[in-house]
Amino acid sequence: MAPRQPPPQHVMVFYHPKVEGSFTLAGEIVDRLARARGMAAVKASIEEAAAREQISAQDMIVVLGGDGSMLRAGRLTAPHRVPVLGVNLGRLGFLTEAQVSELPEVLSRVLDGDYWIEERMMLHVEHRRAEQLVGAYEVLNEAVLGRGALARPVRLTTLIDGDELTTYVADGLIVATPTGSTAYALAAGGPILPPTLKNILLIAIAPHLSMDRAVVLAQGAAVEVIVHTSHQAILSADGQVEMLLLDGDRVHVHNSDYAARFVRVRPPAYFYASLMARMAQNPTADKNR
Amino acid sequence: MAPRQPPPQHVMVFYHPKVEGSFTLAGEIVDRLARARGMAAVKASIEEAAAREQISAQDMIVVLGGDGSMLRAGRLTAPHRVPVLGVNLGRLGFLTEAQVSELPEVLSRVLDGDYWIEERMMLHVEHRRAEQLVGAYEVLNEAVLGRGALARPVRLTTLIDGDELTTYVADGLIVATPTGSTAYALAAGGPILPPTLKNILLIAIAPHLSMDRAVVLAQGAAVEVIVHTSHQAILSADGQVEMLLLDGDRVHVHNSDYAARFVRVRPPAYFYASLMARMAQNPTADKNR
Amino acid sequence: MAPRQPPPQHVMVFYHPKVEGSFTLAGEIVDRLARARGMAAVKASIEEAAAREQISAQDMIVVLGGDGSMLRAGRLTAPHRVPVLGVNLGRLGFLTEAQVSELPEVLSRVLDGDYWIEERMMLHVEHRRAEQLVGAYEVLNEAVLGRGALARPVRLTTLIDGDELTTYVADGLIVATPTGSTAYALAAGGPILPPTLKNILLIAIAPHLSMDRAVVLAQGAAVEVIVHTSHQAILSADGQVEMLLLDGDRVHVHNSDYAARFVRVRPPAYFYASLMARMAQNPTADKNR
Amino acid sequence: MAPRQPPPQHVMVFYHPKVEGSFTLAGEIVDRLARARGMAAVKASIEEAAAREQISAQDMIVVLGGDGSMLRAGRLTAPHRVPVLGVNLGRLGFLTEAQVSELPEVLSRVLDGDYWIEERMMLHVEHRRAEQLVGAYEVLNEAVLGRGALARPVRLTTLIDGDELTTYVADGLIVATPTGSTAYALAAGGPILPPTLKNILLIAIAPHLSMDRAVVLAQGAAVEVIVHTSHQAILSADGQVEMLLLDGDRVHVHNSDYAARFVRVRPPAYFYASLMARMAQNPTADKNR
Repeated sequence: MAPRQPPPQHVMVFYHPKVEGSFTLAGEIVDRLARARGMAAVKASIEEAAAREQISAQDMIVVLGGDGSMLRAGRLTAPHRVPVLGVNLGRLGFLTEAQVSELPEVLSRVLDGDYWIEERMMLHVEHRRAEQLVGAYEVLNEAVLGRGALARPVRLTTLIDGDELTTYVADGLIVATPTGSTAYALAAGGPILPPTLKNILLIAIAPHLSMDRAVVLAQGAAVEVIVHTSHQAILSADGQVEMLLLDGDRVHVHNSDYAARFVRVRPPAYFYASLMARMAQNPTADKNR
Repeated sequence: MAPRQPPPQHVMVFYHPKVEGSFTLAGEIVDRLARARGMAAVKASIEEAAAREQISAQDMIVVLGGDGSMLRAGRLTAPHRVPVLGVNLGRLGFLTEAQVSELPEVLSRVLDGDYWIEERMMLHVEHRRAEQLVGAYEVLNEAVLGRGALARPVRLTTLIDGDELTTYVADGLIVATPTGSTAYALAAGGPILPPTLKNILLIAIAPHLSMDRAVVLAQGAAVEVIVHTSHQAILSADGQVEMLLLDGDRVHVHNSDYAARFVRVRPPAYFYASLMARMAQNPTADKNR
Repeated sequence: MAPRQPPPQHVMVFYHPKVEGSFTLAGEIVDRLARARGMAAVKASIEEAAAREQISAQDMIVVLGGDGSMLRAGRLTAPHRVPVLGVNLGRLGFLTEAQVSELPEVLSRVLDGDYWIEERMMLHVEHRRAEQLVGAYEVLNEAVLGRGALARPVRLTTLIDGDELTTYVADGLIVATPTGSTAYALAAGGPILPPTLKNILLIAIAPHLSMDRAVVLAQGAAVEVIVHTSHQAILSADGQVEMLLLDGDRVHVHNSDYAARFVRVRPPAYFYASLMARMAQNPTADKNR
Repeated sequence: MAPRQPPPQHVMVFYHPKVEGSFTLAGEIVDRLARARGMAAVKASIEEAAAREQISAQDMIVVLGGDGSMLRAGRLTAPHRVPVLGVNLGRLGFLTEAQVSELPEVLSRVLDGDYWIEERMMLHVEHRRAEQLVGAYEVLNEAVLGRGALARPVRLTTLIDGDELTTYVADGLIVATPTGSTAYALAAGGPILPPTLKNILLIAIAPHLSMDRAVVLAQGAAVEVIVHTSHQAILSADGQVEMLLLDGDRVHVHNSDYAARFVRVRPPAYFYASLMARMAQNPTADKNR
């Protein structure tokens, strides 16, 4: 159904120095690609700044890891429009495309161009203080504005395209992509959105007698949140970067110019099957006391 | 911002025989349009079958009533692509565009072509028993499959594009449009979707240890629900038509070929303002014991 | 820890004619009790009116079945203060005490008096129309007032000890015991209450912009619900009896004079262990399409 | 209905130096009590350590402030069994008994002994690291274990009376009293418990595919929570004290030996009326941008 894709010629395989087995597996994949197919394939640690600079020269990135690695690779490759093939070495693997055992078959299909690209919307997040830009981030899951270490709510006046929607009084507000709808937003009670959607999802964490329903915005909508707090508050970008928010700070969020590109060999329906498997997961099963 | 629309020439004004004041107001509007503007304007009861047959000859329908009348007019006019201007004589008026007091100004703007058309996605619902089509409906809010008069759950095996999503064990399953996201689906805990979205929303009513999250489907997805029940079950279309469901019946839902067209003079941001006003409403205020 | 109980002398074993294996198992248990212990033990169908009249002459009732049978036996035995030992032949078995495989050991402990009695609060439900009593029920799980076969909300003005609490606009209102907190009320989003509590739980089903939080009442509180509806509404007692409610009908609920008595050999902590097992259950696993 | 209480002879009136009007009002109340009634009445700042040492010599404490002041006064007076009369100078005043305008009448009733004492259960919270006691707190609303400034979940293995209930993976776990059921726990989706209950309420904040239902424990149950985290985590006592939690720390919670005593002149049904008024409140109304 999906149009045939160009077979990749230049491939970089990212391993993570802390993920067991990822270095060895990266070597095996590079061998397979380089020796068997005569391709330009290299391996590199996802922690290496030098390697990241090579991304734009690649046709495809293979990532060995879990969903955290996929988020990171998605953000790194998005500006260069380089697609990412995820091989699951993690626990959940909701974003990855292949288990290690499926790798030979999946690689073979990819090298034949028998794959499709799933574009995942990202968000551009700007943190402003008075007239100054404090920081800007591209996120693939979500931006979270919320309380810091004090267990007290913050007040978050929220505008859509310049018009006030409401003031949340809550532990925090999640501004999520459809990709993020199955992450933190799900824990906060949000709906599941299809990966193809281009709409922003808003949902509060522990709202205190304030708006407690998830809201999906019209495509292209811009969000502005004004922070009212007398105690520590934070802005979190994809759960990776945490910045302090001061009273009066403003956070602007709108669709990013970039999108993550994930390589898929399974049909689009994979999403619902993975989803139901994930919903049935019991994270208490692997607790390690 | 929105392109200028053609001023309507032929207008039919629908009153409801049971809604107080709607007959008189309909007369006043027709007078204004016919006398002052020389237009072809007529009034008719929304209950009259003969009047409904004239819809296709109109450029616009004016409806005097509440959200129930808007849903009805939306369904009636959708096949003919005739837009509907709603004047609120009801309690909520979430779908209507004007209060009675605003009517002179709104009419004037509409006659000048200074309005825009909001298309609202509808759903096509087919009820099948074995190989037979039992009934088919176009809905603007939602189809509900659920328990009948016995307060016991039904089992609803749900497929998306032919692949099983899950089996809900619940009082019912709501298959809603974005318009319906602020109706029954909201009461069941669902998210608010923007009117412009073209995606189906699934949410269970009182799910019993089964999937309890709202799911928004990819645009164009087709839903099939297989009913498992040993007691009375029903299919409801927009809360207007109720059909008995038997064990083994199947209900298919996908985007309709038709869309409701609502006349708007307010900018698109009206939706969020109306929404927050609605969320703050306390329906217990007008209780009549 | 619990005081030693009197070993039962007269025991009746209830089988269900429709539950496979229950007749045979009932015979085996009676044999064991009568032959091995010289006890007065008889078996009977739970459907037999004559057998039910013998309940008051028993020291203990053994029930072979699932949670539905336990609810029924609990209601039947409560007025006679006869305890019930549940042996799980059903799917969930949340209320039963023993699996079939554990029966020899459990019976042996019970015959030695090494068990304790768990009292489960019941509710007395009165359905009144004008000044007339339409019906009265003792329930062990819950009374539900709600919509009938039309998928539209009803209005339920609710008073606590004569003072108005709120008017629910909803599919229904569940008035539950702690035992019922893990049944229908759980599906509606309610909390889990310990079996020992004597307090009533109120929770609405799909509340439409009305009170959407579970409320636990003070011990001894009396509930009165006044029904406002223009369409079919029903009163359900333990999901077994369904009565039509008319506009203006009143339903009164307070603690029953009776309590169900369940025989337990496991320590009280069994409840949380069973609960977590139950929460992890996936009812879609045994779907039969 | 309630037995007549002893009229207080020694009264201390607490004002808050930061609450406008509280100093003046305290003076007026002391005048009224001392001059008109010849009572031993003094005023003091709730911030004064010296005044707090006088609490045990009083028959009653009058507190001028909001719910925060009531919580504080409740904790201060509980060990001395001195009752607290709250006069609302705050916004919500859910725990206070009188508005300023009602003060003459309420005081008059109290001085006549025409009042009753509402005992509110408190919790004893112990924070343990290895074999060491890090801190101990008495709380009237809740203890919260949760994430610190990083927006990532913590793992909280939770035991009831020594048996494992579950491992929450969440932003936090609220261990609340019935008084706390209308505070943070309500924002997290919990049920409303009557003030007279003596049971602990557990509810997770933003649970990630883990136990998401509120659980009310049997009276007298002891809770132990073991913290698993690789990042900052905190223990909050009544939202007033925040302590850092390290990986492996344990928090024990059980009913306190102390209870807060609130003076009431309204009948017990006041609780539901106040509750519904509070639920209808829109905290966005007084936003100050």
